[in-house]
Amino acid sequence: MQQQDGFSRWLGIAVEEHAPGRCVLNMVVRPEMVNGFQVGHGGIVFSLADSAMAFASNASGEVAVAIDAQASYPAPVRVGDRLRATAREESSTRRLGFYAVEVRTQDDVVVCLFRGTVYRTGKKFFED
Amino acid sequence: MQQQDGFSRWLGIAVEEHAPGRCVLNMVVRPEMVNGFQVGHGGIVFSLADSAMAFASNASGEVAVAIDAQASYPAPVRVGDRLRATAREESSTRRLGFYAVEVRTQDDVVVCLFRGTVYRTGKKFFED
Amino acid sequence: MQQQDGFSRWLGIAVEEHAPGRCVLNMVVRPEMVNGFQVGHGGIVFSLADSAMAFASNASGEVAVAIDAQASYPAPVRVGDRLRATAREESSTRRLGFYAVEVRTQDDVVVCLFRGTVYRTGKKFFED
Amino acid sequence: MQQQDGFSRWLGIAVEEHAPGRCVLNMVVRPEMVNGFQVGHGGIVFSLADSAMAFASNASGEVAVAIDAQASYPAPVRVGDRLRATAREESSTRRLGFYAVEVRTQDDVVVCLFRGTVYRTGKKFFED
Repeated sequence: MQQQDGFSRWLGIAVEEHAPGRCVLNMVVRPEMVNGFQVGHGGIVFSLADSAMAFASNASGEVAVAIDAQASYPAPVRVGDRLRATAREESSTRRLGFYAVEVRTQDDVVVCLFRGTVYRTGKKFFED
Repeated sequence: MQQQDGFSRWLGIAVEEHAPGRCVLNMVVRPEMVNGFQVGHGGIVFSLADSAMAFASNASGEVAVAIDAQASYPAPVRVGDRLRATAREESSTRRLGFYAVEVRTQDDVVVCLFRGTVYRTGKKFFED
Repeated sequence: MQQQDGFSRWLGIAVEEHAPGRCVLNMVVRPEMVNGFQVGHGGIVFSLADSAMAFASNASGEVAVAIDAQASYPAPVRVGDRLRATAREESSTRRLGFYAVEVRTQDDVVVCLFRGTVYRTGKKFFED
Repeated sequence: MQQQDGFSRWLGIAVEEHAPGRCVLNMVVRPEMVNGFQVGHGGIVFSLADSAMAFASNASGEVAVAIDAQASYPAPVRVGDRLRATAREESSTRRLGFYAVEVRTQDDVVVCLFRGTVYRTGKKFFED
């Protein structure tokens, strides 16, 4: 799945763990990822968390698409920070999956608290 | 502000309108922005919306940082889609600003409904 | 629908408008609705907004249930305030509906910005 | 704090644990808390979660007010269900607190996943 995901590649995402309902990713914040105040763009941290949810929710081979997501930002990220996102399924029904993702820096500072809901389409896909 | 924002540049964001409490941005979805299912990564559409809120909430010259954001995705985006994000301030206090951002395609399909809250730091910044 | 809804009755909700995808409700904040700081409990304002979304999303006769909701509180509500909630459908697919609800006081102060997503079950119900 | 909170009393909330950054509450769903489909009104479950966050975030004696909250509903609640809400602080800064609240039934079914952000006002209050 990741090989086909150009944006996750651009982000420089590395997969540490990947199982149904569970995923751990990491990436390093590069200079081109900061906003006008030299802190990481909110979209970067969100995208890492979103990828973690996508990988966790699609790991079973059934296509799941995000419906809603919410993120809070307790602290900023800076160039050079190594971010680790840990996604876990909090609840699941036949059609819906509910995920929490926490993103921390190398210093264990929480920089993003993410929650998202996915809709299971019922379609299967083939991974490389 | 945008000149210093490497990620907004990478996204290819163009500014249509930019005033205190209001911002309209557009960008085109490129092949490297899609996820494993060949639809735009949720983080791309979110990042466009987030930039629109950032530009609108910082237009007065006082630094505002995002605390919380929420996004819903009624429809997918595809490579080649031109996305337009319209941000408006829904409410404002001395310390907080509340924004809604809607993202539509060239065909006027709503692809993201975004809400975000910013904290006004009280610090001023200098734009180029 | 409202006749069967005990909690909306307890809240004292009055229906001003009610159509598919659209609903306007109002209610008055009573002394038993405040929290420990003598301001309206967040749950009261949220519940009014949630009812507005429920009425709007079920007006067509098909049962829709809330999946996700988000609320922001720009200002507190006080005992005696008359609150008006205006719900409108922002986007719709076969299975999902996306709603925004704004709650204002008699003085036109925005006290709650609500967004919610409903899942259409495909079941019909009969109204009184 | 709870003695002054009329709405938490109406809900029938009982406090199991209450410490800075942590709170466990429970309540029973009564017939007047259901909506038109005989399932618990979303506002009821949300209000329980919101109270849990309020108790946890004010336990230190400094007034904290909710800015943003988000809730997802994996399963409905029914009349007679005993709900238990567990709130914990996920992150904290001088001005902001970030909370997660999970609500489960007597059968350990997750019925609400709540996240909220509070603003610390800096004011102290006196509890009874």
